[in-house]
Amino acid sequence: MENRKHIEVCFTPGEYEYFKDECEIVVVIDVLRATSAICAAFAHGVKSIIPVATIEEAREYQKKGFLAGAERKGQIVEGFDFGNSPYSYMKEELRGQEVVLSTTNGTKALDIAKDAEIVVVGSLLNLEALCKWLEKQDKNILCLCSGWQDKFNLEDTICAGAICEYLVGSGNFVSDEDSSVAAKYLYLSAKDNYFGFLKSSSHRRRLKNLNLNEDIKYCLTPNQNDVIPILKNGKLVQL
Amino acid sequence: MENRKHIEVCFTPGEYEYFKDECEIVVVIDVLRATSAICAAFAHGVKSIIPVATIEEAREYQKKGFLAGAERKGQIVEGFDFGNSPYSYMKEELRGQEVVLSTTNGTKALDIAKDAEIVVVGSLLNLEALCKWLEKQDKNILCLCSGWQDKFNLEDTICAGAICEYLVGSGNFVSDEDSSVAAKYLYLSAKDNYFGFLKSSSHRRRLKNLNLNEDIKYCLTPNQNDVIPILKNGKLVQL
Repeated sequence: MENRKHIEVCFTPGEYEYFKDECEIVVVIDVLRATSAICAAFAHGVKSIIPVATIEEAREYQKKGFLAGAERKGQIVEGFDFGNSPYSYMKEELRGQEVVLSTTNGTKALDIAKDAEIVVVGSLLNLEALCKWLEKQDKNILCLCSGWQDKFNLEDTICAGAICEYLVGSGNFVSDEDSSVAAKYLYLSAKDNYFGFLKSSSHRRRLKNLNLNEDIKYCLTPNQNDVIPILKNGKLVQL
Repeated sequence: MENRKHIEVCFTPGEYEYFKDECEIVVVIDVLRATSAICAAFAHGVKSIIPVATIEEAREYQKKGFLAGAERKGQIVEGFDFGNSPYSYMKEELRGQEVVLSTTNGTKALDIAKDAEIVVVGSLLNLEALCKWLEKQDKNILCLCSGWQDKFNLEDTICAGAICEYLVGSGNFVSDEDSSVAAKYLYLSAKDNYFGFLKSSSHRRRLKNLNLNEDIKYCLTPNQNDVIPILKNGKLVQL
């Protein structure tokens, strides 16, 4: 009993400070769309991704000749070639490249978590591969949901709940926090139909208004690849 | 459609700043146990309650001759006669009295919300009476969960979800935030058996370890009274 490690859920980057001292692995989750785009990028041959919190940092890299993407409020920032649509990372010209990325929520969460012992990227796309890898680590784990502008969001929570359900089900992990219990319940309500469950999600409505339905469908289809992006010296690389 | 008012849920006092500009009524909720105790107090004849955020303020009032209660981490603070057990407010000597109260989470949430147009107190005890009253107000409403030491908690969220479900069901209110949608789902999962659903709640475990099972049972039994405590000039009084 005492040997079981914790798998917990933090709903927003703003609450990370209350959780960070009790975990060794942080799984950063931004289902719509930053961490989904990152998983898609590695699955399609991108070599590494440098996540930056601000547009200014992304511009600095751009000046140095880096390929850089930036998204704010669901749209590509002016002057950048791409934002955080997973499809924009499936292009031949990005294969083998190093890419810089700044997004509204996801890269901010990566920035906040960067001093943790191990930081990996989670989404529904790499869910099963990630869970299997996490299960083998003998570490306390925190799922850090990126949320939407510092507020709770449903899709990240459901992804976090799926990870909790898997790891607690393995018998080697335990969840103590109410946020983790709630995430599991929400996942169980959603798992047979993510798309239907999230029809009332504010973020889905937001992206739908931007004609991003194809992106949403892609991001909500679990287990499309087996990449595990991990943060090493400020860069995301494939484990 | 456009005439419908909002009923939303904020999971923790720390996130209140992101919600406060869009509501006119704040319902402060701390099911285990501050807002339940406050409802019980009014139902048993207490005249008014002065909520204070700190122990120091409670001591100042005590020196002036006020009856004062203080609780931290589930226990009565040394030097005070009572904490936030609802049963301590059912005594004959408190009838008609003005009482001062400071608790770990609930009175802090009241303090944070104090500048809102209208601040009322919610719990499972006064759930139906409160919902009926809220329904008649033509105002945007925010349920502010007190949480546990700035973290999300299940019991406050379920109470907030019950209020959302009632008001959205009336047809005159709408919930847009993901936190409100999640609270409603959690309420629907819990409503047939609050006690069972909350067996995994961290706060319930905490209070159970302090032999507060009777308090928990009382606080989780809905619709025991029809009081609506409202904040007027820094004092809670009955509407």
